[in-house]
Amino acid sequence: MPELRKDPVIGRWVIIATERKKRPSDFVNTDERCVFDPSTCPFCEGNEKKTPPEIMAYRNGTPSDSSGWSIRVVPNKFPALAIEGEMDRMGDGMFDKMNGVGAHEVIIETPTHVCNYDSLPVHEVNNIVSAYRERMRDLKGDPRFKYVLIFKNKGRDAGASLEHTHSQLIALPIVPKRVVEELEGSKEYYRFKERCVFCDILRQEMKDDVRVVFENQEFVCISPYAPKSPFETWILPKKHQSCFEFLEDAQIPYLAEILHRLMIKINEVLGDPPFNYIVHTAPLHEDPVHYHWHIEIMPKLTQVAGFEWGSGFYINPAPPEDAAQALRSGDSGDQD
Amino acid sequence: MPELRKDPVIGRWVIIATERKKRPSDFVNTDERCVFDPSTCPFCEGNEKKTPPEIMAYRNGTPSDSSGWSIRVVPNKFPALAIEGEMDRMGDGMFDKMNGVGAHEVIIETPTHVCNYDSLPVHEVNNIVSAYRERMRDLKGDPRFKYVLIFKNKGRDAGASLEHTHSQLIALPIVPKRVVEELEGSKEYYRFKERCVFCDILRQEMKDDVRVVFENQEFVCISPYAPKSPFETWILPKKHQSCFEFLEDAQIPYLAEILHRLMIKINEVLGDPPFNYIVHTAPLHEDPVHYHWHIEIMPKLTQVAGFEWGSGFYINPAPPEDAAQALRSGDSGDQD
Repeated sequence: MPELRKDPVIGRWVIIATERKKRPSDFVNTDERCVFDPSTCPFCEGNEKKTPPEIMAYRNGTPSDSSGWSIRVVPNKFPALAIEGEMDRMGDGMFDKMNGVGAHEVIIETPTHVCNYDSLPVHEVNNIVSAYRERMRDLKGDPRFKYVLIFKNKGRDAGASLEHTHSQLIALPIVPKRVVEELEGSKEYYRFKERCVFCDILRQEMKDDVRVVFENQEFVCISPYAPKSPFETWILPKKHQSCFEFLEDAQIPYLAEILHRLMIKINEVLGDPPFNYIVHTAPLHEDPVHYHWHIEIMPKLTQVAGFEWGSGFYINPAPPEDAAQALRSGDSGDQD
Repeated sequence: MPELRKDPVIGRWVIIATERKKRPSDFVNTDERCVFDPSTCPFCEGNEKKTPPEIMAYRNGTPSDSSGWSIRVVPNKFPALAIEGEMDRMGDGMFDKMNGVGAHEVIIETPTHVCNYDSLPVHEVNNIVSAYRERMRDLKGDPRFKYVLIFKNKGRDAGASLEHTHSQLIALPIVPKRVVEELEGSKEYYRFKERCVFCDILRQEMKDDVRVVFENQEFVCISPYAPKSPFETWILPKKHQSCFEFLEDAQIPYLAEILHRLMIKINEVLGDPPFNYIVHTAPLHEDPVHYHWHIEIMPKLTQVAGFEWGSGFYINPAPPEDAAQALRSGDSGDQD
């Protein structure tokens, strides 16, 4: 059983993932679980038996774990958390721990061995977004879980161990530190201003129009004012909405469209970089008036080094105004 | 002038480092400033003119910026912050910014093109530690600075752009978020227990003796209870001491010895990995009874991916008890 342990100084939880346990010598070489070869890819249509049995799929009447699907959701084969069991919070001398209970799922985004959203038609991105919402709504029914984190790692340098385009989801028995920070920060702003800080950001960005990358009827894509890394980009719903799972049917095509457009632009301007994106949403069973869900996309272009680790703040050599301009125009800067 | 900008939600500052400004196309390839070729290394003896003029050196009577030194401290050629100027805090619509005023220095740790502490005799590590303390005491005299962060990036994957062994130092006009978290967490513990949390950690670890890597008369090296990454290791003074610059002459050889020994073990067990280490110390001009300086060493063996970015907590496949055991014995685990 994996263990959740709490740092006694700053209160950050870590998962000691015993299922993924390695010997020291395993760290010397690169991760042996990396599969970047399509012929052995467990996510390709026809290879359904190479994954654990599916949790959910969008299928045309074909049976589970066979071909004939457009989206498949399966448990992670090397889960960071165990789906069975109780949390059992307990002390360990002066320290605090609990069982690593949670869900760790993989959303296989398309049956063909495609590595990028820009190789997918936009209606397939609709399916991806819709699958996210469906899984989140389903996991909300498990009273052990307080938070669902949906994220995507693209490329080995961004932590992916498989090339076939996919996202992941982790359901957690606690609200993670980073989310608590956003909740507390936005609450403090709300207390002072009686307005949602994200709504205010949207309004200022749309008025200034220097960090807006693009927008459609329902969503805006911006380079944030204080990005921690070059070309960090946020997608926010224009409508105030605290939780991702409140996403309405009518919003889905617009979210898919803006995400698809951004992926095309990022690949065009930055040459198919590794990246992470993360859905930032409120905890399950909460609907805080001061919080506003959004997606943060972070191309991995620089290394996080000692300064960043030690200080928790970031040196970013790319002003967001320039990044927004480059993504807007698709200009790679070579004409400057 | 670089700019410090504040994230309006979580309050994290970032440095928009205009001196390091790049065009989008510059991110497509790897960093052109990386020099891993000894023949052109600006840190080697004889190449002193390739760096900005030195701030300090340990020399045998030779003139500044010539050969004949054992340690040289120079300004970073591509500084993230500007040494001249005032902070000028100001609003920018709803946002907050200030001038990026600060010091960014490089500590060149030895005149020969050596890449590792384990190729240095321990008395040279004495000099390194002593140079850290000297710079910190000196920068304390500048009233604009609130914090000095000393760190080391070793290897390209840990953010180093030069191979020749060196550390860096950044003096900041604000106390960084990560440090504030440690200060607040340790203060809360102190309020509850009336004891320093780090002293308590030391006592429990030395009693349990399962996560202690090794110790000498003045320092203990441990694998912390809740490490964010595999083989994260902390070095703490046994004596309660809030600030690194309070390090006493008599402690220096013991710090050098334990740091040197740890570097040798890390290279032996993990095969010369990239790593970062960071000196965690209290803000300048403060001597909080609840804080205890220490060094955190983080070999870079796994990628920080979407989950970590989104949640602020970490999946670690290496239990610290195993890591401590491996570092203690020098066993690479192949005999298991």
